[in-house]
Amino acid sequence: MIRVGIIGVGTVGQSVANILRKNKALISARAGKEISVVKGAVRDLSVERRVDIPLTDDVNEILEDESIDIVVELMGGIDTPYEIIKKALSRGKAVVTANKALLAYHRFDLQQIAGEIPIGYEASVAGGIPIINALKVGLSANEITAIKGIMNGTCNYMLTKMIREGVSYEEVLKEAQELGYAEADPTFDVGGFDAAHKLLILASIAYGIDAKPEDILIEGIENVNQDDIDFAKEFGYSIKLLAIAKKIDGQIELRVHPVLIKQEQMIAKIDGVMNGISVIGDCVGETLYYGPGAGGDATASAVIADIVEIVRAGQSSPMLGFKKPFQSEDLTLLPKEEIRSEYFLRMLVDDAPGVLASIAQVLGKHGISIETFLQRPSENAKKATLLCATHTCREKDILSAIDEIENLPHTSAKVAMIRIEA
Amino acid sequence: MIRVGIIGVGTVGQSVANILRKNKALISARAGKEISVVKGAVRDLSVERRVDIPLTDDVNEILEDESIDIVVELMGGIDTPYEIIKKALSRGKAVVTANKALLAYHRFDLQQIAGEIPIGYEASVAGGIPIINALKVGLSANEITAIKGIMNGTCNYMLTKMIREGVSYEEVLKEAQELGYAEADPTFDVGGFDAAHKLLILASIAYGIDAKPEDILIEGIENVNQDDIDFAKEFGYSIKLLAIAKKIDGQIELRVHPVLIKQEQMIAKIDGVMNGISVIGDCVGETLYYGPGAGGDATASAVIADIVEIVRAGQSSPMLGFKKPFQSEDLTLLPKEEIRSEYFLRMLVDDAPGVLASIAQVLGKHGISIETFLQRPSENAKKATLLCATHTCREKDILSAIDEIENLPHTSAKVAMIRIEA
Repeated sequence: MIRVGIIGVGTVGQSVANILRKNKALISARAGKEISVVKGAVRDLSVERRVDIPLTDDVNEILEDESIDIVVELMGGIDTPYEIIKKALSRGKAVVTANKALLAYHRFDLQQIAGEIPIGYEASVAGGIPIINALKVGLSANEITAIKGIMNGTCNYMLTKMIREGVSYEEVLKEAQELGYAEADPTFDVGGFDAAHKLLILASIAYGIDAKPEDILIEGIENVNQDDIDFAKEFGYSIKLLAIAKKIDGQIELRVHPVLIKQEQMIAKIDGVMNGISVIGDCVGETLYYGPGAGGDATASAVIADIVEIVRAGQSSPMLGFKKPFQSEDLTLLPKEEIRSEYFLRMLVDDAPGVLASIAQVLGKHGISIETFLQRPSENAKKATLLCATHTCREKDILSAIDEIENLPHTSAKVAMIRIEA
Repeated sequence: MIRVGIIGVGTVGQSVANILRKNKALISARAGKEISVVKGAVRDLSVERRVDIPLTDDVNEILEDESIDIVVELMGGIDTPYEIIKKALSRGKAVVTANKALLAYHRFDLQQIAGEIPIGYEASVAGGIPIINALKVGLSANEITAIKGIMNGTCNYMLTKMIREGVSYEEVLKEAQELGYAEADPTFDVGGFDAAHKLLILASIAYGIDAKPEDILIEGIENVNQDDIDFAKEFGYSIKLLAIAKKIDGQIELRVHPVLIKQEQMIAKIDGVMNGISVIGDCVGETLYYGPGAGGDATASAVIADIVEIVRAGQSSPMLGFKKPFQSEDLTLLPKEEIRSEYFLRMLVDDAPGVLASIAQVLGKHGISIETFLQRPSENAKKATLLCATHTCREKDILSAIDEIENLPHTSAKVAMIRIEA
């Protein structure tokens, strides 16, 4: 019998315990051994929990229990779970975690500490979608050319609602908070940081890249407005927060930001709170994985898949850990300013002669050519909103051009920019 | 070094050989051993092939070569590959096949012959999509409630085109044949048999069911016409050929047929030649897997994933073979006539008093209640087309009702029926 201890018995932890009981026959048959949750550690024993396992408020009752084989960490945070996981690994216990923030910072040093002890983290990216399994096992013939994911349900819910119902960012955020889809402080989700953590985990599998959140381009959805959405609709785009990893000329670009993306693209069709990840492989082309990115039972499904894999195959499973070679070359991170993309710009300018010419001149000077241009009257009669899409150019050049445009005498607000994902 | 022999070096076989050469460093690192294709067997040596491996027209040069570890069967057909695979297994060689027709009939007896020798078949269902891996490894915590797949690219291409462009079945079939998406004799694809073979493979994994194509409900897309499409559009449906497996009260229903399905459903959004499979698990809810269902390189991606898995884990890999328990109960096939569904009916009737009443009476007599009804004038002024959707009822009852309606004095053609997938 395999004995499991759960640290953090909140929504996901309760689901893990309950599903392991409910589907015990199935899961034990698949794993080849009986799996039992023998203890849960919680911060506050007075909170009522719908589980049928012994609880303790002393985490050491799990970490120091020699009979426990697998520790499931579901407490959240970074520093405390890091110490707890290190201790579990040092005592030879396999670890399963859903903690993306922890892994975004500490995946490689935890792997080094783990050595031959398995670490499972399928639940850390896109909840119930078995994306790590697909990437490492299902696509093992492929060099991964690109990964493009909708990996934050809060942002996708908000953008879907803004597009479908024409409501403002502020309104939809308030509603998402009321529904429990967004936190009181929503920065972690709407600012793109949650998606970035997941992207870093996938990129380290596909490319062996040990980047930290600080190293990559992260922008949130806070500045998307109805002008952008109107433009998007008019030209056949949707707007999504995408986490993107691409391999280009031996370098890896990693970025999280809103994009304009053609409505026909499969990933553009993923609406509401759902997640989806498109993976481009050099042989298979595009495959896409869709499902719930959050929720107790869905996340527990991934946690348990890791437990089964640990029981079945241990460290020899390619699903587990961060040390198996998936990429044979040494790859480096492409500097942010070298990223190349098409760009959409929104500018509020004085409705005066020569304004358009001066903006076009700035863009031309930076070698940026215009693909689509739309001018419409603003609410303020003396102003005009200019919307424009460029051909592919370098991030460095568009940023310089934007800076220059913002300093033109007739530009009256920050220039809003959204990248276009072709 | 692991030595591979390929039997059948057509489009997929050539891709397998070429990708194993091109991505050799990557794939060997992932497998933990070097993998080399040492020989290919073909029927006709005079055909030019873009591969760099020694070819023979004597299959025994592969089967009897003791140095070959893995035989990849890509020749198509049923009886000949069955004999070849049996011989390969009897000589202790692992087998990888993309042959769905063979597996639809012989998967369980091949597994029995194989014993501990691994058989890989990821490529037999939905080409490059790693669905078998997802089902067996990624979703191992779940009881599978339902599988719904678009698993025939030809049908999906044709239906997409009929819906988008209003072209007739005959026109789009001709075009699909010209593009090479449909065979000269298209029955295998448009009649639903290809999708049924794939469904049987998935159902045997999810439910351990050893059904043959003859045992299950299979209907093709040949009778879908623009009246049906108009009705579908009017009520927010798309039309897809779905392969469906469901577990209901300890019984399994398996069926392939066109369905009306709400446009908002993710699987309804899969258009053109692409494939997609929605899997409902009791914990995770719906996850969906999308990608190319055919094509040399995409199919080769799945073939190679199996080769890597055989090298890495052998028979202990849950991805391989048909013998590992994924379902602990003994499940039986639900008789076709006991299937329950909502139904769409299209009837051509005389435009005469009392006709509608007599039809409604027949439906009522069989306990079938109407959900939506639409009557429109026919091209023939004396006829009317009646379109109706029912609430859920039994297949047996709707078939009896249809039979009775067809025998009414004012009904002038076969009643067309399409099931509605809620």
